[in-house]
Amino acid sequence: MSEAQQNSPYENTLYENTPYDLIVMGRLGVDLYPLKAGVPLDRVETFGRFLGGSAANVAVAAARLGRRVALVSRTGADPFGVYLRRELETFGVGVRWVTEVAAYPTPVTFCEVFPPDDFPLYFYRQPKAPDLEMRPGELDLDAVRGARVFWATGTGLCAQPSRDATLGALEARGGAVHTVFDLDWRPAFWMDQDPHPYYAQALRHATVAVGNIDECEIATGTRDPHAAAKELLGAGVELAVVKQGPEGVLAVHRDGSSVRVPPLEVKVLNGLGAGDAFGGALCHGLLAGWPLDRTIRWANAAGALVATRLECSSAMPYAAEIDRLLLLATGGE
Amino acid sequence: MSEAQQNSPYENTLYENTPYDLIVMGRLGVDLYPLKAGVPLDRVETFGRFLGGSAANVAVAAARLGRRVALVSRTGADPFGVYLRRELETFGVGVRWVTEVAAYPTPVTFCEVFPPDDFPLYFYRQPKAPDLEMRPGELDLDAVRGARVFWATGTGLCAQPSRDATLGALEARGGAVHTVFDLDWRPAFWMDQDPHPYYAQALRHATVAVGNIDECEIATGTRDPHAAAKELLGAGVELAVVKQGPEGVLAVHRDGSSVRVPPLEVKVLNGLGAGDAFGGALCHGLLAGWPLDRTIRWANAAGALVATRLECSSAMPYAAEIDRLLLLATGGE
Repeated sequence: MSEAQQNSPYENTLYENTPYDLIVMGRLGVDLYPLKAGVPLDRVETFGRFLGGSAANVAVAAARLGRRVALVSRTGADPFGVYLRRELETFGVGVRWVTEVAAYPTPVTFCEVFPPDDFPLYFYRQPKAPDLEMRPGELDLDAVRGARVFWATGTGLCAQPSRDATLGALEARGGAVHTVFDLDWRPAFWMDQDPHPYYAQALRHATVAVGNIDECEIATGTRDPHAAAKELLGAGVELAVVKQGPEGVLAVHRDGSSVRVPPLEVKVLNGLGAGDAFGGALCHGLLAGWPLDRTIRWANAAGALVATRLECSSAMPYAAEIDRLLLLATGGE
Repeated sequence: MSEAQQNSPYENTLYENTPYDLIVMGRLGVDLYPLKAGVPLDRVETFGRFLGGSAANVAVAAARLGRRVALVSRTGADPFGVYLRRELETFGVGVRWVTEVAAYPTPVTFCEVFPPDDFPLYFYRQPKAPDLEMRPGELDLDAVRGARVFWATGTGLCAQPSRDATLGALEARGGAVHTVFDLDWRPAFWMDQDPHPYYAQALRHATVAVGNIDECEIATGTRDPHAAAKELLGAGVELAVVKQGPEGVLAVHRDGSSVRVPPLEVKVLNGLGAGDAFGGALCHGLLAGWPLDRTIRWANAAGALVATRLECSSAMPYAAEIDRLLLLATGGE
């Protein structure tokens, strides 16, 4: 099947009864980015608007790699919600489970872009984001079970009914390979609640855990990458992926294999979205059945490419771009 | 005193101990406007950011007419708050009473621009706007009493502690001429509360009431302009100003005089902000001691000018522009 077919907005019609390669469940919103890097937010005069939200970005990243993807999320009943659904379809992401919530506006997020490593975010998700109104009873659990990869996030656990919906979907997978839990720890969304019991519950149903070092510390209590990976395996997954930023990526499998991939030397413009590009490419590698080493190197390169670009969703790389960067990075070996 | 002096950012130093011409109390936020008119919000790709909020716009409008103005309001403790304070100062509006609230982000408002008469707004002021955290104990009531004109708004009554602060400031005026109450009715901010008792209380302390026909209906129960004006006079003010949109403006004074000004024929680009330009110019006329007829005609022209422009705050007209439009409109008489 060609990439053009896969990314077609008509995918829902063409492949109505086949399972999705990937179903992603979680955050969706509008990102408002300065059109110039290095300008503090109080001096930014014009903003570009982009599709955003970690889960949505992972879905877009995988769709761009030719995968058949659907998102489970919610928006406000407003023009920004209309935009997001249309944009997802344009990117080839199925939106049948992206529904409207009348009570809350579509979230918007402003960011400041200070390369290479400072990208503060300003969230407008109050009093509640529509994507936290995902309800257990409204999920298509057959589709969730049937997906070749299912991806849920820690943010989905921060409020009800999204928490029950997310845990219910993970449980419905019955430990099926591949069930990914993205630790996605955003302290601002949790107020004074303790995330630990919910993270532990999610990890029991997942086969893959992905997180950066801060997120691993929340889930496992340690900032040591190897120790954190071991704890994640102990919590129930078979593959633990620890993103260490400038230190690269560590992946440890229950079978004893492990991979440590150094970061690629790229000129970072906007680090936001790199983790989501990594996630989409990780799913692609899992679906392809690639060896762990190839999958993590490839995902690492996908993240690096997005970091060189201002946008997140629209900047998600195509497979050929990732191959080319890896070829360049290894000196054409 | 020259206009240049009046608009100087050094005004606080130069005139530290003189009373303000105008103190405005109320809403302040960031407006995000499409850079092209006629594009629905779900299709807008880039937004310009502007100073917004009805009270802030009235302050800017009066400052641009050479008046010494200060705003009483609050912002979040964030980069948008920094921007708003700097922008107010650039416009010549004193910001000593524009303070930060740590708990809430600076509000942002998106708008759609469908000339000539459809300008939907999308407010992000949840869970609470910082400007509703104005507190009675933090007001400089001597300055409020000393101002030659004091301006408060109905939105200031929609939540505590802003309600007590607004009513306290109005009461502190002791019926001094001129104390303006801008009805400023925004149903979205009131939830299920009944505004009537608070509006009645505010009007008892005001000498001028200003509102459009919807707002007058909330305050008085009638949509008939003359009947509404009569009710407003009965509620305590000496001057009632009813903005009727395409029907022009009706102003009725307790002394029996009244003025009806037809709308000016202009090509409307964005009607938002026209009412605030009207308000700033109304204050200018009151301060100048102009006859009612001249004041209302002039304020009407100021509003018409802003309606021909995309922005609100930065589009507030200078006195010479208003004179010129009136001269053109009367065929150069």
